[in-house]
Formats: sequence, structure tokens, C-alpha cells
Amino acid sequence: MTGPAEARKRFRDGLRVPTAGYAPGFAQANMIIVPREYAYETLLFGQRNPKPCPIIDVTDAGSPHTALAEGADLRTDLPAYRVWRDGELADEPGDITAYWNEDLVTFLIGCSFTFETPMLAAGIEIRHLTTGGNVSMYQTNRPCRPAGRLSGPMVVSMRPIAAGRVADAVRISGQFPAVHGAPVHIGEPEALGIEDLSTPDFGDPVEIREGEVPVFWACGVTPQAAIMASRPPFAITHAPGYMFVTDVPDHTYAV
Amino acid sequence: MTGPAEARKRFRDGLRVPTAGYAPGFAQANMIIVPREYAYETLLFGQRNPKPCPIIDVTDAGSPHTALAEGADLRTDLPAYRVWRDGELADEPGDITAYWNEDLVTFLIGCSFTFETPMLAAGIEIRHLTTGGNVSMYQTNRPCRPAGRLSGPMVVSMRPIAAGRVADAVRISGQFPAVHGAPVHIGEPEALGIEDLSTPDFGDPVEIREGEVPVFWACGVTPQAAIMASRPPFAITHAPGYMFVTDVPDHTYAV
Repeated sequence: MTGPAEARKRFRDGLRVPTAGYAPGFAQANMIIVPREYAYETLLFGQRNPKPCPIIDVTDAGSPHTALAEGADLRTDLPAYRVWRDGELADEPGDITAYWNEDLVTFLIGCSFTFETPMLAAGIEIRHLTTGGNVSMYQTNRPCRPAGRLSGPMVVSMRPIAAGRVADAVRISGQFPAVHGAPVHIGEPEALGIEDLSTPDFGDPVEIREGEVPVFWACGVTPQAAIMASRPPFAITHAPGYMFVTDVPDHTYAV
Repeated sequence: MTGPAEARKRFRDGLRVPTAGYAPGFAQANMIIVPREYAYETLLFGQRNPKPCPIIDVTDAGSPHTALAEGADLRTDLPAYRVWRDGELADEPGDITAYWNEDLVTFLIGCSFTFETPMLAAGIEIRHLTTGGNVSMYQTNRPCRPAGRLSGPMVVSMRPIAAGRVADAVRISGQFPAVHGAPVHIGEPEALGIEDLSTPDFGDPVEIREGEVPVFWACGVTPQAAIMASRPPFAITHAPGYMFVTDVPDHTYAV
């Protein structure tokens, strides 16, 4: 079993894989890094859209360190990053040291992987863990509440759940409101503007079997959709599914 | 039974009373208003101290309107305000129109009154509602996590609860994490640095009867303690216990 510090070391040393299933029992986080000039709007975007953007830590400008993982370096410890210029993907490095400067503020955002461990413990299959792939994520037709210059659609992650276990999945994830909480939508992908579940906007497609329902949770990739829609001059994020592994036990976020 | 719009109208028309028990079933909110130059640190202070400062709405600069109550005017609709200059209380008006300007950003913060209604419904006596007074509030020896220039101690509200109902009070309030949630401390006021429960720092003293335990919840007056400790040039808050009554049903904040 890989612990969080060991997982971060492997990613720091170059391993480039989705982080689902790594350091089970420890919370993972989405990340968005912006110049100080965008920090207030980014924090406000999170406050106004707490389901997709539950902010769990904010660094001081220029600091690559977080209270969520002692000794971690946010510039090197994720398996993959995305660098954005004017809303366009400019680079997808495994290390952002070359892009770092003292003006950057980092926001860590809760991740639905946090409630996958208790769902597994309750006997609910998490398909992308079974197959070893990345979770499926989709842009929706639901606009977030704008914050100044930042706006964009909500992104959701999808897990196929056996119809008889959907209520349990709701109940268990609902105990974690700080990391997306209960699903935002169950079944009926068309109502979210998702035409084809087999072609996710981010991550890998996953098989939906007979008797399973697609269940949608608000997703921390939403700030990346806001970057694409709002086109700030510069930003860095994690690559979808390639998260920051924290030292915080999952149950810390349970109510 | 007074509804929220009617309650706000009465306060706008000059009624100056603590709001506990007004518009039962609708959430009330703490308020802090700061110049735009302090907005990021105020929002960050809330993000870093979510138990005492759960921010439930942020206005655009200069706007006295909130998404939490259509048609309400934040300058007139609270029964009492406090105006702060350099961390000192400068005025306690019933209307802040004279202090208003286009540079001011308003933060609304969840209030523990929200879970008093479900506690009452469960047969738990809320003493300050019985007596018609204001809840007792105390500064503690627990520092908040600072945010830039803002720092200060956590403030708590206290309700005496019969020992046999404390667990129920925990369970019910814990269902409302967005409005302070479960208690931060049960019994043993000395451990919080509170020497005499009969002399609260804010609000009215309440009687603690034989067989009752003082139960402490994180309190939205905490930003006022931060103002006193950090001495920003200018701020406006509600007067402790004289809250903003929203149109949002309490159960909206339940998980």
C-alpha cells in the first residue's frame, strides 16, 4: 500500500499516471494556480460554486507549500500539470518549476476520489478503479455563477453505479460535502447536455453495464473549463485525474 | 408568525431587537463589510476558518443586494450595525446608508440560529429564546488561522443544554456544516479561556441550570474579533445577535 508521501515522491521522480487508487484513505486535490491579480476572483468563484469548486487550501503568493501535506512541493509533486495561456493549453509538463514565480497563488480544491474509498468499503464498484483508468469527466450545459472575469460551465465526473446501490452512493458521498458531496445529477445525461457518454471531455471512457445508472458528481476540473471560457492571460492547473495527493485522511472531510 | 420580508421591513422601519426567533425556519446571517482592498483577505480568512466564518454570499463591490433575499437592502434591513475605524467601535447605527460607498464589499456568514429551529423541533430548549434575550458569546483563547493582515481569536456562542440532550444537539447541528455545524467544545469553559460564563463578551448572560452543560459553537462574530485585533482602517458589521434575515429556508443548509 502506497502512502501519500511515497506517492508524491514517485510522481516527483517522474511517474505520470492518473492518481485514482493511490494512497487510499488520503484525500486528493484539484489545483489551480493564478497570478495574484486573479486570486480574489478565483477564491470568489469557489465560494460561489462550492459543489464543483470546494476550496480546501490557499497558499500565500509565491509559496509552493500547503498545510495539507508537510514537506510537499506543489511545483513537482503532481504527476502532470497543464499550463494555460489566454485560455489555451500551452504545455502539459510533469514539473512546473520553470513556470514558477513569486506572484503565483495556488488553490487546492476537494476531489471526489475522497469518497471512493468509503464507497468501495461499502461494496460499491468504482469502474475506473477496476479497470485502472481515469474517471470520465464531461462539460455540462450548467453555467457556474460568475465571479468577476471568471465564468464557465460546470464539469462533472461520472461513475456507473448499479441501480440498487445508487441510493447508497448518494448517502455515502453526501457525507463529504467539502469534497463535492452528493451527486448533482443521476441518470439522464442529455439533460446535462451530454450527448455521448463514451466520449468524455476529460479522462477515459468507462463501460456502463446493464442495470447500471450513470451518476454525476460536480468536478474540480470546473476551474479549467472556466479558464477555457474566460481566457485569463496565465494559469496552471493539474492535468485532469492527475491530482495532488494530500496527507489529510479522507474521513477529515466527513460530516 | 413573521416571515423574512416582514421581519426585514420591521427592522428597516426602526425596530432594534436581537433577531433570534424572528422568521423561524429561515436562515439568518452575520455580516462584514470591507473596502475592496481588504476583500481578498476577508474571503481568505473565511476560507481558512470555515467553522467560525462560513461565508454564504459575497456581493459585488458597491452592491447592497444579495442573492439570499430578493429586494433586501443590506444598508437598512438589519436592526443594528457596528461601524469600525482602526479596530475601534465608532458608531452603532440602525442604518448605514450614510457610510455606504461604491468601494464596499459585503460578506454574509452563516449563523447558528439556523439550527435552533430543528433543535427546538426536537424538544431541546434554547434558553435565550425562552427568555427572549440575545445568545451569549465569548472570545476564546483559540487563534484563527491568519489571512494576510487579518487575524484574531475565535468567538463562540454558548447554549446550556441538558446533559441527556447534548448528543442530540451535536447530531442536529452537525447536519448544518455550512452554518457552523457541530459544537467546537462541550463543557469546560476554562479550556477555552472563558473565566466567567455570566459575563459574555457579546450578547446577554443566560442561566445554566442544574444538570445542564454549556455547549459552545463557533460564532460568526469572529470577524469582529479579527477587526478588533487587526485594526483595518474601516469596516462595518452587524451588531452581535442583530442579524440579517435571509429568504433561504434553514433546511437548504442541511446535509
